[in-house]
Amino acid sequence: MPKRFSPTEYIDGVLAGNRVMLSRAITLVESTLPSDQDLARQVLDAVLPHAGHSVRLGITGVPGVGKSTFIEALGRHLVREQGKRLAVLAVDPSSQRSGGSILGDKTRMNELAAHPQAFIRPSPAGRSLGGVTRSTREALALCEAAGHDVIFVETVGVGQSETAVHGMVDFFLLLMLAGAGDELQGIKKGIMEMADAVTITKADGGNEQAARRARAEYQNALHLFPLAASQWSPVVTTSSALTGAGVPEVWQVVEQYVQHAQANGYFQQRRQEQNLHWLHETIREALETRFYARPEVAGSLPELRRQVMNGTKSAFGAAEELLGL
Amino acid sequence: MPKRFSPTEYIDGVLAGNRVMLSRAITLVESTLPSDQDLARQVLDAVLPHAGHSVRLGITGVPGVGKSTFIEALGRHLVREQGKRLAVLAVDPSSQRSGGSILGDKTRMNELAAHPQAFIRPSPAGRSLGGVTRSTREALALCEAAGHDVIFVETVGVGQSETAVHGMVDFFLLLMLAGAGDELQGIKKGIMEMADAVTITKADGGNEQAARRARAEYQNALHLFPLAASQWSPVVTTSSALTGAGVPEVWQVVEQYVQHAQANGYFQQRRQEQNLHWLHETIREALETRFYARPEVAGSLPELRRQVMNGTKSAFGAAEELLGL
Repeated sequence: MPKRFSPTEYIDGVLAGNRVMLSRAITLVESTLPSDQDLARQVLDAVLPHAGHSVRLGITGVPGVGKSTFIEALGRHLVREQGKRLAVLAVDPSSQRSGGSILGDKTRMNELAAHPQAFIRPSPAGRSLGGVTRSTREALALCEAAGHDVIFVETVGVGQSETAVHGMVDFFLLLMLAGAGDELQGIKKGIMEMADAVTITKADGGNEQAARRARAEYQNALHLFPLAASQWSPVVTTSSALTGAGVPEVWQVVEQYVQHAQANGYFQQRRQEQNLHWLHETIREALETRFYARPEVAGSLPELRRQVMNGTKSAFGAAEELLGL
Repeated sequence: MPKRFSPTEYIDGVLAGNRVMLSRAITLVESTLPSDQDLARQVLDAVLPHAGHSVRLGITGVPGVGKSTFIEALGRHLVREQGKRLAVLAVDPSSQRSGGSILGDKTRMNELAAHPQAFIRPSPAGRSLGGVTRSTREALALCEAAGHDVIFVETVGVGQSETAVHGMVDFFLLLMLAGAGDELQGIKKGIMEMADAVTITKADGGNEQAARRARAEYQNALHLFPLAASQWSPVVTTSSALTGAGVPEVWQVVEQYVQHAQANGYFQQRRQEQNLHWLHETIREALETRFYARPEVAGSLPELRRQVMNGTKSAFGAAEELLGL
């Protein structure tokens, strides 16, 4: 068992903005040991009143879109020009610490990682989506309590993780490449509709015109789609992590959104809804885990699933059979 | 208690395509009486092997888009020109039998309702979305077992019901008006991305050009969006329920989709996934209902919800507290 500290040591360390203690507290919330979970809950409940004061930005895009370099560029702008304290987290259920995973290869964010106002933490390894989601949400609260003004939550735009990230951030940024076509195949249906802003990346080295064209196309397309509950019209920009062009503008869009959503009350309302959502999601997950782990249920499920799949038994009939066990 | 028949009477009646017995069997699956539910399960399990042989079409659009007249026009085309047997069901949780609800006012579908090859059934009244969804799915199986080749499941494009309908149909048709703008506000974000086809309605009486323009705009916009798992590119058409123009073409699109999805195996795969989905959804609903009905949970929940909403207690801490009760 790794070294553990007292609740007070974690709490005081996090609240003082001590990066080493913040990192250790995140390790605690990532742990699946029951004793760690008890300790984590004490720490979280103590620091929560100090959390909630950041802008939370979800960032997604398929591999190849240049997500790491964009995050490095936007992050540099925030810590250097805007004087922000930035934390970068990731939700990537497939992540392995050993592999070349999302944020795992910190060399891709060398400069940002070395900056005293930036804190970068890869996705916990070897966990289910539910597990990663939970610990990322808790890590986010810890980073806020440690005084970070902006939190990035990075994810890969190819699966279920985007919905989870969308449920924990204030603003959702989608990175796309110019040339709408094949490269879009990787983005899952439904992710586009979550975006509060899209930025067409790699608008440099002769690619500027194609990027501007893509920008116009997406802007037109998004205008045809219904407004989100925030009453915010998604904005499309172009940017280059290489030249830095368009990078500050992305942050301006985020700030405009925050002003807009704070003015109409949506910002706070959404956070409250997100909190309640996680309460009920956590309960749902626990109820399902307990139910399906019961030996009678686990024993009967495969055959009933087969019959339901083939249409020889109704889903409702099979459900009642399992619930009656 | 209303008159009930023996299981054999329901089963034989439904399988013989007897409309009166079909109607009575649907009343049975809509009932919340435990004795009716036992009977309904026997009937369903007996007829299920005879179900599954229809094309299931979800149809949605906001009030004012002309949904009833479009359904009447498409339905007439199917029963008259195509020789199909058609059933029209609805998912509308807010429906009241007394009110002017979806399909409740059958006078809007006078001719179709009177046709011997058409069977029209309004949404059950006074039920939750979960309840309506369940009974509509069961009614759908009964209609199939009674020999209907095409099932429409109608819903209003303003809420959660579309996701439920999308989970029980093969094809999802969205009705829109020309003049993309204010009238779109009523359509919820995310519904557009579910559509396998969009038809711009009311393309008549001088509105044809605006409809064609809207068609082109939506077609362009939808092409920018990622393909669904079916690998089907959504099709946009114009139609007029008044003149009948474009109505047969909508059915042609549905038939093209069915051919496409049967050829690539998606059609059957999706139905199996839908069946499994409903099995696990039913279990989830039952587990949650039981949990939240427990007096200790119901007693503690309001205060914990308040604390979680305000951010003074973590969602996970509150969930563990409730789960430990």
